[in-house]
Amino acid sequence: MQFHDPPRFPKGFRCASRNVGLKPDAPDLALFVSDTDAAAAAVFTRNQFPGAPVLLGRETIKRGVLRAIVANSKVSNVATGDAGVQHARRMASAAAAAIGTTPDKVLVSSTGVIGVPLPIEKIERGLSGIASDLQVEPLIGAEGIMTTDTHPKALSMTVGNATITWIAKGSGMIEPNMATMLSYIFTDAAIDATTLDKLLRDAVHVSFNMLSVDSDTSTSDTCAILANGQAGAVDPRAFASALTAGCIRMTETLARDGEGATRLLRVSVRGAKDEAEARRMAKTVVNSPLIKTMVHGADPNVGRILMAIGKCADCTIAPTKTSASINGFLVVRQGTRMDFDDAMVRAALSTHAVDLEIELGVGMASATAYGCDLSPGYIEENASYYSS
Amino acid sequence: MQFHDPPRFPKGFRCASRNVGLKPDAPDLALFVSDTDAAAAAVFTRNQFPGAPVLLGRETIKRGVLRAIVANSKVSNVATGDAGVQHARRMASAAAAAIGTTPDKVLVSSTGVIGVPLPIEKIERGLSGIASDLQVEPLIGAEGIMTTDTHPKALSMTVGNATITWIAKGSGMIEPNMATMLSYIFTDAAIDATTLDKLLRDAVHVSFNMLSVDSDTSTSDTCAILANGQAGAVDPRAFASALTAGCIRMTETLARDGEGATRLLRVSVRGAKDEAEARRMAKTVVNSPLIKTMVHGADPNVGRILMAIGKCADCTIAPTKTSASINGFLVVRQGTRMDFDDAMVRAALSTHAVDLEIELGVGMASATAYGCDLSPGYIEENASYYSS
Repeated sequence: MQFHDPPRFPKGFRCASRNVGLKPDAPDLALFVSDTDAAAAAVFTRNQFPGAPVLLGRETIKRGVLRAIVANSKVSNVATGDAGVQHARRMASAAAAAIGTTPDKVLVSSTGVIGVPLPIEKIERGLSGIASDLQVEPLIGAEGIMTTDTHPKALSMTVGNATITWIAKGSGMIEPNMATMLSYIFTDAAIDATTLDKLLRDAVHVSFNMLSVDSDTSTSDTCAILANGQAGAVDPRAFASALTAGCIRMTETLARDGEGATRLLRVSVRGAKDEAEARRMAKTVVNSPLIKTMVHGADPNVGRILMAIGKCADCTIAPTKTSASINGFLVVRQGTRMDFDDAMVRAALSTHAVDLEIELGVGMASATAYGCDLSPGYIEENASYYSS
Repeated sequence: MQFHDPPRFPKGFRCASRNVGLKPDAPDLALFVSDTDAAAAAVFTRNQFPGAPVLLGRETIKRGVLRAIVANSKVSNVATGDAGVQHARRMASAAAAAIGTTPDKVLVSSTGVIGVPLPIEKIERGLSGIASDLQVEPLIGAEGIMTTDTHPKALSMTVGNATITWIAKGSGMIEPNMATMLSYIFTDAAIDATTLDKLLRDAVHVSFNMLSVDSDTSTSDTCAILANGQAGAVDPRAFASALTAGCIRMTETLARDGEGATRLLRVSVRGAKDEAEARRMAKTVVNSPLIKTMVHGADPNVGRILMAIGKCADCTIAPTKTSASINGFLVVRQGTRMDFDDAMVRAALSTHAVDLEIELGVGMASATAYGCDLSPGYIEENASYYSS
């Protein structure tokens, strides 16, 4: 499966972005539009303080039909009470008016600082006349939803006659639990909303839900898919595997651009007792600050891998059956550190993508988690996120 | 309850430390001795890759009698197989020979790099003749067990006729689960081993087990208490409350000296449904990288408090009943961020000890967790811990 370069939109999708005054100069508002009604599905954060746009989105997605997604950055509209929900509704109405549809077909997202009021008037003014800006260029929309991301994130792929396009943002407060920060998927394949919902959940299970930049679950996580059917039917299996492949690639793209990150870290756990334990252990290891700093410094302190495995007190392990390798280089065999050449392991840890593979030898289940190293850049960014 | 300044030992306890060649110059071996047999209890790490000294210690402590504790730094003797256990036994024998007792009355600890062989010959040579170095000065022993600690950690307190002395080390790989990194408690009170075990577990439950520097559970955690009875009986309640108070103070001392830490962070959760939920939430918030970096930068980004509360998907919360304060300054009321003066909150976050109090309003249970901020120093230290 090949990703397009540059990414492109499926038939009938366009987007626009603008600066509406939430940030000094950069685009801070994006609009994604399907020319015709699209079947739609979405999953949202499981954080118990969901933002107003998430509360509204759960209601909107029930009908399984969308025409547009509107998103702003800088202010997340979370912990803003009833006024926040009213602001989210006004944002949907303004977007609907701009493109000539009804507010119940517009999904709203807001990300940024938690707990401050959404400047709804600026957003309403910004949406006025935006239809004339719409273009067939996914990177424009991807740029409009960025917060601390260092680059806009868009991918696309062909499946049969259809195209799938992924657009996402997110680099901190990322350990999605049902969805990622913001991830939008567009396709011109003809698929009904119920099928779309199942396909989306299956793909998210092995991709965005296995991503963690910092173990902090955002209050705004949203992953939505729109299928407008303009390319007709596609082979369901081919579509499902393309959808999953693209979600995994986008997950890796987000992890690699984690706040302050310099390396992608993929942790694969094999031979686990069951899938739940494999997933839990992969997440635990990918989140361990001592593993993340080891990877950042390319420090061959591989005993920490056993520490991180062993700290999963509720997972089944057999110390003498546990092995681990880094980019294919065996560093732990049967629970004991190998007598390796430090320089070789340092080199393996110095690559842009570090694959840490753990073999537990107690069962047949496996899982892969996606993360990144922990660098001073993460701290710089987050010690003054509100003030700067 | 007053702590002594400087800390002192109970009757009949002495210690020594030496450099035996594991580190370039600093002390790397410590010995703690009771002149007479002491009733003893201990709790150890729940990490599933316990070090050889922990495996041996679990066996040793069963008899409830100790005369000495011997500990080295730099090499943890973890993931070293059968040879590691033999090395731990040889270390106990060498210490026993040096003070004229049997190896089954010596508790062994090793901390440092995981997975490399313990240089047992250096340790045996270093223990030879060490009895002549023993002194009534707890700070000497505290210095001998330090790894990345920036200062030796010892506390003491009077209870009736007796004294309790705490000695500990640890600043990274700290989220103890049954005990802390290394924490030794000495008393001349007369208490039997069974009572001691219960008192220790109760005190550890609200102190060391609520400590987290980085969410990583060490493979070497050990907390032991020795009571040699030389001061006779004490009031059991007074002893229990002194023991708990000292364990909490030592927990705070460890947190404040967490790797790279500049501030102590105490998270108290009140009004939780039950104690298990209160503990889980307090730990989750104290471990949140976005809370830790907010505290590091004294950035009044208090919406993150709601994110961290809400990410506990399995705890009972009522968003509109949730409040939070920082050093007594109310920042969230009934789920909504207060309209506060940023400078006031910045000042509250700039203190050496930051108290974050969360009121859930859904029950009567409470818990406090202890941690620290996350600074670039943590990363510097851990990106090259093995190599440097």
